Amino acid sequence: MVATTPVSPVTAAAVGDALATLRERSPLVQCLTNIVVAQWTANLLLATGAAPAMVDNPEESGVFAGVASGVLVNVGTPYGETAAAMEQAVAAAGRAGTPWVLDPVAVGPLLGWRTGIALRLLSVAAPAVVRGNASEVMALAGGAGGKGVDSLDTPEAALDAARALAGSHGTVVAVSGPVDHLTDGERLVTVANGHEWLTRVTGVGCALGALMAAFAGCVEDPLLAATAATATLTVAADEAAARTAGPGSFAVALLDELAALTPEALTERVRLG
Amino acid sequence: MVATTPVSPVTAAAVGDALATLRERSPLVQCLTNIVVAQWTANLLLATGAAPAMVDNPEESGVFAGVASGVLVNVGTPYGETAAAMEQAVAAAGRAGTPWVLDPVAVGPLLGWRTGIALRLLSVAAPAVVRGNASEVMALAGGAGGKGVDSLDTPEAALDAARALAGSHGTVVAVSGPVDHLTDGERLVTVANGHEWLTRVTGVGCALGALMAAFAGCVEDPLLAATAATATLTVAADEAAARTAGPGSFAVALLDELAALTPEALTERVRLG
Amino acid sequence: MVATTPVSPVTAAAVGDALATLRERSPLVQCLTNIVVAQWTANLLLATGAAPAMVDNPEESGVFAGVASGVLVNVGTPYGETAAAMEQAVAAAGRAGTPWVLDPVAVGPLLGWRTGIALRLLSVAAPAVVRGNASEVMALAGGAGGKGVDSLDTPEAALDAARALAGSHGTVVAVSGPVDHLTDGERLVTVANGHEWLTRVTGVGCALGALMAAFAGCVEDPLLAATAATATLTVAADEAAARTAGPGSFAVALLDELAALTPEALTERVRLG
Repeated sequence: MVATTPVSPVTAAAVGDALATLRERSPLVQCLTNIVVAQWTANLLLATGAAPAMVDNPEESGVFAGVASGVLVNVGTPYGETAAAMEQAVAAAGRAGTPWVLDPVAVGPLLGWRTGIALRLLSVAAPAVVRGNASEVMALAGGAGGKGVDSLDTPEAALDAARALAGSHGTVVAVSGPVDHLTDGERLVTVANGHEWLTRVTGVGCALGALMAAFAGCVEDPLLAATAATATLTVAADEAAARTAGPGSFAVALLDELAALTPEALTERVRLG
Repeated sequence: MVATTPVSPVTAAAVGDALATLRERSPLVQCLTNIVVAQWTANLLLATGAAPAMVDNPEESGVFAGVASGVLVNVGTPYGETAAAMEQAVAAAGRAGTPWVLDPVAVGPLLGWRTGIALRLLSVAAPAVVRGNASEVMALAGGAGGKGVDSLDTPEAALDAARALAGSHGTVVAVSGPVDHLTDGERLVTVANGHEWLTRVTGVGCALGALMAAFAGCVEDPLLAATAATATLTVAADEAAARTAGPGSFAVALLDELAALTPEALTERVRLG
Repeated sequence: MVATTPVSPVTAAAVGDALATLRERSPLVQCLTNIVVAQWTANLLLATGAAPAMVDNPEESGVFAGVASGVLVNVGTPYGETAAAMEQAVAAAGRAGTPWVLDPVAVGPLLGWRTGIALRLLSVAAPAVVRGNASEVMALAGGAGGKGVDSLDTPEAALDAARALAGSHGTVVAVSGPVDHLTDGERLVTVANGHEWLTRVTGVGCALGALMAAFAGCVEDPLLAATAATATLTVAADEAAARTAGPGSFAVALLDELAALTPEALTERVRLG
């Protein structure tokens, strides 16, 4: 943190204000994401109040990153062409000052190609936020990592790795889990909302990364942006889980609850630590 | 319009008859579309009564366009291989007389690569229908265009561009908006059904393009086909919006309503102008 | 069948036990599938109790097939890069003894490229299961095949082809239809559950292939695995259809019912023949 950058405290009130700002500005979020979650990510952004645009080819991703409010890069199903597009987008985001979010899906020693892509992207321009599960964050920070998309580690176990990664890259690191942990290397925020069914719907974490890019595109402090995204998604999930009977209807209700969630209700219901 | 082609007037009765024809014939619709909306497009076609087939590689797209009832080409997330497949499909559709629909997602001066693809496709074979928002239609006709997937212009503002594009390419141009405007360069049809939530679900416009290809594959007049598709989708949306509470449940209900919509109800409820 | 491999009979009780085993082990299923159904496939696996991972690039697909419990290869929308990834995955699955499932979507004389891919994969390593509709199975066995993704033939008409294919490749062949037919070349099992709406939701067959890979990853007999997957999906579909009014809400309810289905209920409701 540079002393001249004003950093508001990450409070429940600030989180509610961030949602109000997102609704006013409807940030344009460029998503370079995987084939599994592209539709869900776009629908979740639309439901919340942001504007998605999936420009993920190398001919156009750079120029679009220059006009987008925020950029998400998710390495869930990389291919030669989309990996090249990611590098163009991150370089252009860096030049334009567009905040970008890295979701290092399944990085680790098993999947070396995507791990190399993620590490290269980190060296091209510093992301506003890195969002992953504990295994992914530990792998990116130089640890062992998991074998797939599910984490074998707890967010608490990944805290040292998260702080180190945040410090070395000047970024916020958000670690998903039963209690989400977010840090900029100095401050630590936890969010204790959410429901087990979030793990039974594909792409919730991926869509959370996109929502972080949306908030980063309209509030200044990346830690507040990442926290507001996490709070918005998990508070809506609490509401959705309370009135549904399985993962199918839960996913549908989650979109409805995201659209219905008010800044006031968010401030009231978020459980920050 | 060539004098020897019989052109039925685009009436509410003709629109209902078109839906009855689609249900009888179950047209096979080849979709070369984007990764965001492929599932949604297929489900929307199936719910309405058409048969989707997503054949979008350059080795097979041409031969399939020769047997399909209609072809949709949507440039939402083009890549090298799928762009080549689009050119093969359009060329084969032209040779076989298969009607094809162009959805020029986000074309304009910012995204030059896809704009070039769309313009090249227009020169390979005349589409039955071009479907887009006002910004896209204006950009394709030589105007300025928007910066993303959302239109900054109204359909009314794009009417001159739509008529010019229709006239110069011998095609129908359908401009989406609160009131949809459709023209073949001479006739103008408006459809005033629909709901704001249609803009909160990703890919509704994209799926509408596919539905236009389905109707164009079983009714002769492309303006009737495009109008019937627009009417079917927006009348079903009216029903779905009336009984749901947010964009998630609205999207689910829209599929149910499309399957349940009868030709009679369509004729009764469509608001043509 | 080699005499030293113990083969349990495919009974309703064995099918229920298989589901209990899947829930205990949560098999990791690598899916190399098409862009239309990737999200739906992942959600259906998660709802049932398996863990999906869509690793479908040629740099990583081989190494992942070595650690996955089962691998699905679906040729619905092949591209150069994903076709190469399929070959790597199947070769590695063969070396590691990981069971893999082939879904030959739309193979036949019309679509020669994917037919060549499917035949080549069959020669690289024997799949545990081949799953398709009647037209696809007949085409793969050397017959005529259909023109798209929908079968023009009945499962009964494809039985000789299914037996021949099973015998020549040492695999189980599952033929979808109103009554599903499954054979290992000697034994024949039929499953008479399911609902017409399954044909109005895209990717149900594709997701069934993934579910077969999940079961094959945790039960020994591939015919039992394929039958348990078919039974689980179609019994849940019976429940979902009984309480919904259209294909949209049916698809959502199907995920809920898959999550709620108990091994006991499965055993009780499956209609094996």
